[in-house]
Amino acid sequence: MPRQVITVERDVLEQSRTSAEEFRRARAAQGTLVVNLVSSPGAGKTALLQATAQAWRGRHSMAVLVGDLATDRDAQRLAPYCEVVQMTTGGACHLELPLVERAFTQLREPAVNFLFVENVGNLVCPASHVLGEHLRIVLLSTTEGDDKPQKYPKMFRTSQAMVISKTDLLAYVPFSLEAAARDARKIVAELPVFPLSALNGEGIAPWCEYLERERQRLLAAVP
Amino acid sequence: MPRQVITVERDVLEQSRTSAEEFRRARAAQGTLVVNLVSSPGAGKTALLQATAQAWRGRHSMAVLVGDLATDRDAQRLAPYCEVVQMTTGGACHLELPLVERAFTQLREPAVNFLFVENVGNLVCPASHVLGEHLRIVLLSTTEGDDKPQKYPKMFRTSQAMVISKTDLLAYVPFSLEAAARDARKIVAELPVFPLSALNGEGIAPWCEYLERERQRLLAAVP
Repeated sequence: MPRQVITVERDVLEQSRTSAEEFRRARAAQGTLVVNLVSSPGAGKTALLQATAQAWRGRHSMAVLVGDLATDRDAQRLAPYCEVVQMTTGGACHLELPLVERAFTQLREPAVNFLFVENVGNLVCPASHVLGEHLRIVLLSTTEGDDKPQKYPKMFRTSQAMVISKTDLLAYVPFSLEAAARDARKIVAELPVFPLSALNGEGIAPWCEYLERERQRLLAAVP
Repeated sequence: MPRQVITVERDVLEQSRTSAEEFRRARAAQGTLVVNLVSSPGAGKTALLQATAQAWRGRHSMAVLVGDLATDRDAQRLAPYCEVVQMTTGGACHLELPLVERAFTQLREPAVNFLFVENVGNLVCPASHVLGEHLRIVLLSTTEGDDKPQKYPKMFRTSQAMVISKTDLLAYVPFSLEAAARDARKIVAELPVFPLSALNGEGIAPWCEYLERERQRLLAAVP
């Protein structure tokens, strides 16, 4: 019996990996870069997406699939900026691919340049779940403290870039950009780091340019 | 076979409830109020405990069992203030009672007036795990946004009080104390709310007095 359980589990994991790869390929073929945004609650994922949509207005299309335990508050905040589908997990601590795939089918215009999946606010559990993204990007806000990369290593180890959000508050909080970047790069050498403020716009341009370059790289690799 | 699995699971849950109740009774008999502190990463649990220990110096004894995925940074921060034992979960997203019980046995002076369990920074998973505490208290920092009670309802529903931390930053962030308290009280009517700043000391006195009253109430009920 144990042998059979292990086999089933392997099948499920294997199937999940295959589905993620299929989702990734299908989006790339449509010209879409998929970004999975992860962070603690309140680190500013929604505010960053609002600022990103504003910066790209008239230049790049984007859509957001936003996950929360409850409420559609984030979807309401994003709706004036781009197409958005709210996913509520009913209490679950992370998103999984089947829910993302179902939400994706709800988009009226799915072939956008950038598709963001805004994960549930949780710096632990979403690290263990691949959603068919091309990039996983972790946000760390200056108000959370610069010790978070060392304290939550898996989330940083599985991310391709780090955004340091709320730089407008740097004058009022004990946070060192250098320490946070150094500690994160002990986990992932050469990790790209983008300090920015969605509130005053500082750092939004380099962040957008990074995503544009990543999209170009992805499209160049599509067979 | 499924029937047997369900039975086993019930036994485990039942046993966990019994252990939590035993831990609670044993601590109360020793004059100790046990407080489980839960919040997002970086909401200021450790800073609050530092400020609390300073306020009680010479008046009340306290100890902290502190949980993290990795590192002993929080234990290092607390060691100058009170006795502290670090628990590292090795990646797990919440604490469970057996780990807390094991850490408790490491205390040199266990019969303190107040025993704090500083949970892993996570606003989701710790809501589902009872640790033998008399009080579960949720911290919400002003920098996280006042929408968190509605977005993470289970954590607030299972807490006996809410601390709103980092009030020193209220002038710089979009956060309404009234909205946060109102939304939390839609979930738990009459929820006690303690706005405070561990940085400038504002609100620390009423917070300490609340815990002192709760301890008196507990001790008065010990048979």
